[in-house]
Amino acid sequence: MSTSSFAPRGDKRTLEEGQDFAPKFDRDGLIVCVTTEHKTGDILMVAYMNEDALRLTLETGVAHYWSRSRNELWRKGDTSGQVQTVVEMRTDCDQDAIELAVEAGGDGKACHTGRRSCFYRRVVVGAGSPHLVLTET
Amino acid sequence: MSTSSFAPRGDKRTLEEGQDFAPKFDRDGLIVCVTTEHKTGDILMVAYMNEDALRLTLETGVAHYWSRSRNELWRKGDTSGQVQTVVEMRTDCDQDAIELAVEAGGDGKACHTGRRSCFYRRVVVGAGSPHLVLTET
Repeated sequence: MSTSSFAPRGDKRTLEEGQDFAPKFDRDGLIVCVTTEHKTGDILMVAYMNEDALRLTLETGVAHYWSRSRNELWRKGDTSGQVQTVVEMRTDCDQDAIELAVEAGGDGKACHTGRRSCFYRRVVVGAGSPHLVLTET
Repeated sequence: MSTSSFAPRGDKRTLEEGQDFAPKFDRDGLIVCVTTEHKTGDILMVAYMNEDALRLTLETGVAHYWSRSRNELWRKGDTSGQVQTVVEMRTDCDQDAIELAVEAGGDGKACHTGRRSCFYRRVVVGAGSPHLVLTET
């Protein structure tokens, strides 16, 4: 195993108030990442990063993820042209989540279904079970 | 185990294009939820829901989560007063993530550190290791 690119996990106060970036990876070695469109603030997608993906994202300024379905490192846009240029990265209080504000390249459609955002359906409660309503087609 | 409140997982096309809400819970029975402030669109927090938390959120219109640290169902605001009223719920293409737009109650500080958002620090790359910079105090 390679040496970590990030700070060791400190105590609660250091994690929450300190300047050390000490991301927490789960038992699969992943951290969740919420990617937003910088221009609008809209959430484009939720994906996962392993340590390499997070390191490469910081080093190159282009979003890298870990594909859980393909089990491989994934530079977003390599096949689709939807390269995501990082404008800002944030982490949360306990440093177990990443927020990535990006400029979406290509035609700006971040979702593999051809939509701008993966969150194109609202969950609606009515008679019977909750169901989904399209917000973009 | 109780009967599920949600539709069974269908094939890829049904999950992505259909009207059935068939959320995917991970091997711990959880689904990730990104909660945004409806007024601004800013991300307030990333948390997790089990099936009960998701069902109660839909039934009551108030955000419920599963606390992984306390291992219990958690109605946000029960102790802090930061009750979150749901304005809109969305799910993503493969239905393994939830987006919740809320109106934050109380003093609007969703983070337990006393801040409006849990994402109060930017990750900055400079000389040496990446480090964190406060965006609100």
